[in-house]
Amino acid sequence: MFVHTVFFWLNRPESQDDRTALRAGLETLREISDISAAYIGAPADTRRPVIDHTYAFSLTFVFTDQAAHDAYQVHPVHLAFVDSCRHLWERVQIYDAVG
Amino acid sequence: MFVHTVFFWLNRPESQDDRTALRAGLETLREISDISAAYIGAPADTRRPVIDHTYAFSLTFVFTDQAAHDAYQVHPVHLAFVDSCRHLWERVQIYDAVG
Repeated sequence: MFVHTVFFWLNRPESQDDRTALRAGLETLREISDISAAYIGAPADTRRPVIDHTYAFSLTFVFTDQAAHDAYQVHPVHLAFVDSCRHLWERVQIYDAVG
Repeated sequence: MFVHTVFFWLNRPESQDDRTALRAGLETLREISDISAAYIGAPADTRRPVIDHTYAFSLTFVFTDQAAHDAYQVHPVHLAFVDSCRHLWERVQIYDAVG
């Protein structure tokens, strides 16, 4: 099992258009068949000092193994997403974990 | 859908005993029935500037909704885990997301 988690911070967090565009871009990734389970979200209402709720969107994609993750990274739909949406984010933070 | 993601940094990352103890503690959480999907992992071999691989373990628990997450937080098995393992970690970083 390989869990790929990404948090996105927007360049213009006040722009509803940018938010909508990034969300739409993220949703296109679900069709990539290398992904076993796909979770796309935004910060919950939970508030504790150890919780970071400053990001705009999160993506948690589960893969059978690293090979499936590697195939996803170079999948045309993923590359098209990065190409069309990268101007929207100021920063991404990624965590890759193996189980 | 509610995704609860936690990253753990050990107080003594060089201690294999501490690593084993925290991993064992994390594994006890899987039995909590409020959790819909549970992923426990350690950093993958992927290396890019945007990837944080400095943590010791990650936990990604998926819940049907926030109510299920809230029930998990006060579940005796979760409380026992925090009680018996909190001395092992230096820091936790939590991200809660709703889909």
